[in-house]
Amino acid sequence: MAGQKVQRQTGVALWRQIADRIRASINQGDFDETGMVPPETALALQFGVNRHTVRSALAALGQEGIVRAVQGRGTLIERKERLNFPISKRTRFSQGIGDQVRESSSMLVASSNEIANTEVARWLKLEPGTSVVRLETLGRADHRPVSRATSWFPADRFANIAEIYRATGSITKAFRELGVADYVRVVTEITAAHAEEGDLADLELSPGAIIMTTRALNADLDGVLVQYSISRFAADRVRFTIEN
Amino acid sequence: MAGQKVQRQTGVALWRQIADRIRASINQGDFDETGMVPPETALALQFGVNRHTVRSALAALGQEGIVRAVQGRGTLIERKERLNFPISKRTRFSQGIGDQVRESSSMLVASSNEIANTEVARWLKLEPGTSVVRLETLGRADHRPVSRATSWFPADRFANIAEIYRATGSITKAFRELGVADYVRVVTEITAAHAEEGDLADLELSPGAIIMTTRALNADLDGVLVQYSISRFAADRVRFTIEN
Repeated sequence: MAGQKVQRQTGVALWRQIADRIRASINQGDFDETGMVPPETALALQFGVNRHTVRSALAALGQEGIVRAVQGRGTLIERKERLNFPISKRTRFSQGIGDQVRESSSMLVASSNEIANTEVARWLKLEPGTSVVRLETLGRADHRPVSRATSWFPADRFANIAEIYRATGSITKAFRELGVADYVRVVTEITAAHAEEGDLADLELSPGAIIMTTRALNADLDGVLVQYSISRFAADRVRFTIEN
Repeated sequence: MAGQKVQRQTGVALWRQIADRIRASINQGDFDETGMVPPETALALQFGVNRHTVRSALAALGQEGIVRAVQGRGTLIERKERLNFPISKRTRFSQGIGDQVRESSSMLVASSNEIANTEVARWLKLEPGTSVVRLETLGRADHRPVSRATSWFPADRFANIAEIYRATGSITKAFRELGVADYVRVVTEITAAHAEEGDLADLELSPGAIIMTTRALNADLDGVLVQYSISRFAADRVRFTIEN
């Protein structure tokens, strides 16, 4: 396991540091052979802390759905694989993760009409003061939240997109009903940061978790910009892949 | 500023939570008008903590090079812009950030000859037991570390790559000397996680910082795989851009 020692007085509680280390080890495949986290006593010895601290770390990972304590057996690793999101001209939420999960869905959380702010206007190349429709959506895979997105659409062309999206749960279908037969991803930016309070609830994360944010622009086949989205992904659950 | 309240008993110290919030606000451009963080007293009031806690948060951000206290003026924001790394067929470290910085460099930290492990062999499509050259490199921009990479090259073809790289500081030049006139990025995977202990020293980060990791594969113009790299970037300092 990489980086064995925990650091005291770093502003991050010992149990959280240990949770982070165990999570990293799981993601690196260190326990792939057994599919289990080492016993609490072994972890306590390894990190130089008491069992209570290790137990708090494992409880946090349990809350995140990463491990599960099984009576008499120990701590099972629930989920090692990240969902892979390919980023390409053809990027769509549902197709992206299609065959990696049993079930995926996208749900409308809220919608509104508003005036494009500076960022939205710049991305969609709109005049200041232009009306846009904003959709707040939540993407789930196998009953776990994966991403929380805010999308903006020029209102003159997509005034009814919220209602159609609510009915179909698909941006692709909503676009089609509104005369956009197909669309392509123009550009995607990826950054990472600590989860904010809203993320914790939306994405069922524990404090200290990491969010990967994509800023993405879609255009119709004539190159007219149709959608700008900021999507926040639970970093532990995803990876992005770019094939050239 | 998004998410005002701090949470107690989350395993993350208050000053660290506040540092994370201030960092997020800086990145969101909340203080762009003044180029300064609000006064300590205002922040203390806003977060409902004492000034000592705010001061610890600002000190941590100072260590990361994000803010700088100026006697009699307050806390200046040092760096708002992330380095943009375009990911495409033509991705190279130096060209990627070229005109965004005054100076960038790539330095050899260590090199070794080894047998490809399972992961390296799988990515480079090598037989188990094949020899590879491993290079550990550090990429800097404007005198700050930006990324720490480990690269593997098939040893039969690139036995001397470490020496040439040490002299030139450029993978592109090293490849050229070894008969690879040009190369292309085949695939890039991007994930994010908490920094590990080694990252803190290498990338001059404070505990709790975030790392974005790319796993990347390069091929020569005949499609023969020449390099597999795992690069760890200080998440606060970079963003990745994919243009389709």
